[in-house]
Amino acid sequence: MRITMSLRPITEIAEQYNIPEQYVLPYGKHVAKIDLSILKSNQNKPKGKLILVTAITPTPLGEGKTVNTIGLSEGLNYIGKTAIACIRQPSLGPVFGVKGGAAGGGQAEVLPMETLNLHLTGDIHAITAAHDLASAALDARLYHEERLGDEFTAQTGLQRLNIDVNRIVWKRVIDHNDRALRHINVGVGGGVNGIERRDGFEITAASELMAILALASDLHDMRARIGRIILAYNTQGEPITAEQLEVAGAMTVLLKNAINPNLMQTVEQTPVLIHAGPFANIAHGNSSVIADRIALQLADYVITEAGFGSDMGMEKFFNIKYRQAGIKASCVVLVATVRSLKSNSGKYNIKPGQAIPKEISESNVELLEIGAANLAWHINNAKSYGLQVIVAINRFPHDSDEELAFLQKYAIEHGAFACEVSEVFTQGGKGAEKLAHHVIKACDAPSEIKLPYPDNMPLIDKIQTMVKKYGANKANLSEKALENIKEIQALKLDHLPLCIAKTPMSISADANLKNVPTDFDVDISHLAISAGAGFIRVYAGNVMTMPGLGTNPAYRQIDIDKDGNIVGLS
Amino acid sequence: MRITMSLRPITEIAEQYNIPEQYVLPYGKHVAKIDLSILKSNQNKPKGKLILVTAITPTPLGEGKTVNTIGLSEGLNYIGKTAIACIRQPSLGPVFGVKGGAAGGGQAEVLPMETLNLHLTGDIHAITAAHDLASAALDARLYHEERLGDEFTAQTGLQRLNIDVNRIVWKRVIDHNDRALRHINVGVGGGVNGIERRDGFEITAASELMAILALASDLHDMRARIGRIILAYNTQGEPITAEQLEVAGAMTVLLKNAINPNLMQTVEQTPVLIHAGPFANIAHGNSSVIADRIALQLADYVITEAGFGSDMGMEKFFNIKYRQAGIKASCVVLVATVRSLKSNSGKYNIKPGQAIPKEISESNVELLEIGAANLAWHINNAKSYGLQVIVAINRFPHDSDEELAFLQKYAIEHGAFACEVSEVFTQGGKGAEKLAHHVIKACDAPSEIKLPYPDNMPLIDKIQTMVKKYGANKANLSEKALENIKEIQALKLDHLPLCIAKTPMSISADANLKNVPTDFDVDISHLAISAGAGFIRVYAGNVMTMPGLGTNPAYRQIDIDKDGNIVGLS
Repeated sequence: MRITMSLRPITEIAEQYNIPEQYVLPYGKHVAKIDLSILKSNQNKPKGKLILVTAITPTPLGEGKTVNTIGLSEGLNYIGKTAIACIRQPSLGPVFGVKGGAAGGGQAEVLPMETLNLHLTGDIHAITAAHDLASAALDARLYHEERLGDEFTAQTGLQRLNIDVNRIVWKRVIDHNDRALRHINVGVGGGVNGIERRDGFEITAASELMAILALASDLHDMRARIGRIILAYNTQGEPITAEQLEVAGAMTVLLKNAINPNLMQTVEQTPVLIHAGPFANIAHGNSSVIADRIALQLADYVITEAGFGSDMGMEKFFNIKYRQAGIKASCVVLVATVRSLKSNSGKYNIKPGQAIPKEISESNVELLEIGAANLAWHINNAKSYGLQVIVAINRFPHDSDEELAFLQKYAIEHGAFACEVSEVFTQGGKGAEKLAHHVIKACDAPSEIKLPYPDNMPLIDKIQTMVKKYGANKANLSEKALENIKEIQALKLDHLPLCIAKTPMSISADANLKNVPTDFDVDISHLAISAGAGFIRVYAGNVMTMPGLGTNPAYRQIDIDKDGNIVGLS
Repeated sequence: MRITMSLRPITEIAEQYNIPEQYVLPYGKHVAKIDLSILKSNQNKPKGKLILVTAITPTPLGEGKTVNTIGLSEGLNYIGKTAIACIRQPSLGPVFGVKGGAAGGGQAEVLPMETLNLHLTGDIHAITAAHDLASAALDARLYHEERLGDEFTAQTGLQRLNIDVNRIVWKRVIDHNDRALRHINVGVGGGVNGIERRDGFEITAASELMAILALASDLHDMRARIGRIILAYNTQGEPITAEQLEVAGAMTVLLKNAINPNLMQTVEQTPVLIHAGPFANIAHGNSSVIADRIALQLADYVITEAGFGSDMGMEKFFNIKYRQAGIKASCVVLVATVRSLKSNSGKYNIKPGQAIPKEISESNVELLEIGAANLAWHINNAKSYGLQVIVAINRFPHDSDEELAFLQKYAIEHGAFACEVSEVFTQGGKGAEKLAHHVIKACDAPSEIKLPYPDNMPLIDKIQTMVKKYGANKANLSEKALENIKEIQALKLDHLPLCIAKTPMSISADANLKNVPTDFDVDISHLAISAGAGFIRVYAGNVMTMPGLGTNPAYRQIDIDKDGNIVGLS
């Protein structure tokens, strides 16, 4: 049951957290953008502590990471602390596809859920617009240079860019699940209708601009990053940036409002900042630096979630977000469920939307123990970054006391600072009371973040270091990958951190290797540069950046009722 | 000079016009959405009078229709009346392309201009999202029906739609000038990447959803209209609607906020409602019914503009908007400039961005008199709809007193109720003082709207009636057009009004025929159905629905300055 009756005007929530009125830009009654200039005004205030929420290897059953991020923020409020959750904005594609929204749920949900899951304040649309402006500019330039030939400079006063039509790396984006747009040919009309070439659309969350929005420290930093984006290469093999195409300023202008985080509230009126939503494979999978910084100046505790398991979003939090912005976490909360660990045993091949095997829902400590190895791996992985790890067992009704007792013991034995059952879905903040106390203690424990590689380590060694953290014997780099490394070195971008694009469904790069894979290699097909976001994408397998719609998509159920209310959205 | 210092909080503007607080949804400090439910609360209030602003045949010199719409609203306020301007929302494409924004200018501008010209409250983005959701749904259905073949119904529980891949009439949309997307092939990846077919993108303003947003009377009417949209035809030649694809509800949900008009203010703090922006060729070219209705319940006078010349947006105001929604205008204001009339003489071939011939900027009554025939035609055309016509001469610095005196006399002699010089660009409301008094008198004069054809007139006769209004001898319908008429009759949609898609640059359908063309025919290539918007598009020539970017696009100059302010936007 959703308690929408408890929603307060967002201006009251802002007031309660001492956000001065001039920084609060309401968007309707229940959402406000917080002007990032608040960071300057608040710069001398003491800072809160950041809690990073991650998870075991994800399964189609769902682990409840967002629910627990929101629930823990409610829990900290419940025990008398100030707390703010910082989460990512959901994409429209999955909302109308199969996954549904990402507002949490039950008593640990962001309200109004419809607002969060639909346009919110238009940040994702702004990214789509800015991204596709660069695409339009690129194709227009290609066309005019081709059309005018040697006369181009004389007629336009511009230097030729000599874009290599086969090396345009900037695809278009749209915020939908639309498989027919994965691979397209543009400019097929001939004549005045542009230059024909192969192109494709990715979902907007995959745009480098999404990662930039999440990593930028302010508007000027965002402007500089956008200028550095590599859109294409010229016929000499040199990068062509958004700056060179003279489109970086206009792209930034389109994101001028998007850079301000969005304030909403939970069922229990705990403030939530929603900002950016980069993927945790081809990007770093964390909400924005600006949202974290604002929250850290307003609350005792800031709870943020990283995408997928600890091998994905959490790793990237440390290696990319912390490295770039110095945002320091004070402890890690690792979310697991009894069912998901059983699924992680590797004994079942569970597919989304299909029936769940009976054994998984019945009490079975032996099965759980097998799957718990995955939990132990993630505890150990998180600890390797130098922080205390608290395991939150997201309780489901069919979990037996025996199973929960086993897991609590198991987690401590395998290095967790604490392990606590979380019942935030049904109880809200009260359901995270004990968890919140453990978190406070863990935050107070001495810690020092350890990074697995220094910036100046050669790229090949960075890659080998990272795959060994997954438990791999080694990485096998293709010819193409080795060539890419040389190009990156030549551009003097090899100091950038890695962003390893691999499946989230295994600790390894092979989705079929469940539990804790051993004795495997990781094949690296190629590398690519996100020069604006500031990382090197390392591809260990195909990454789907444009989902498709199934035969029973969510949009079929979504409508307005006779009173004009939205129905069918979840 | 822009007087941004005079901007008031939008909540104060709303309060001054007695908009109850519960209907005011602020989006930042200077924009608010007005909840359309205000219409129910206000339904017994006396209604204001609507003034429809149109223009002579447009020229690349610009006539100043938006400036005068805004300036006249300021003028009516200046003389002590309450007045609200209702205008269309600018597209992003032209903002970054060549045309620039559409906020008016000088002392007759909507502020903040940057907000109006960029995302505003996201309505256009919402239309893009809703439109392209239908495209994704259509291609997904095509793919799954093909993939599953005879098993489709058994596996999905859905009836086959049997979409004819060659008769998908719903193109995709994007809010950019992007010629490379005019003609594309989608689904070229093969296998799981969809079914290959020819497709294309139009600019979002060309979406039927934009026309629907402008014509819907409430959320339920919008839902029903979206359900009626014809997306494609099946292999039997029968239409496939958004309702049949089960996507109409989700599309409506995406437009749930967009249906509420946007309130802003002018330099002189006169309220402006900005809502929808359909083209005036393939759509009806007027801002929304809902905005007009709200404004008519709040102010003595509501000033709205229709796209292009009186043969385009004004004609469609009467034949489509008035016919469907009963929104009655009380008089017509026809905007002209001395220079534009000289250009309309037909003696020059002026191209956008090129130097203006010297003669046009020098006092020359003979040249003006030739071009003034175009003004006379538009006066007569507007009067034929049963209303008084007031000519507003939008003054430019180089206009001579002799020229202005000539025009005032000429306009009255050719049937205008009044003709007044407007100096709103430099003087704001004061510059429209006399114009405002004339407008009030014209609104009080007895009038009765006359439509050129009844709903039940056969389509061919409607077409012949309309082209004769342009001065044509007759319309020549192609085989295809005649076939389309039969199809429309078979679907029992021939009662719908026409939406004639022709060039705006001539009263005829040939852009080369300047001034007042005579002795010409109009060729009709084909007809198409906008079943949701509720009109039949009649194509008299090619209509460009996806602009391109030139060699010196506006985006090159757009950036943020060192203080983070937007520069280069106009």
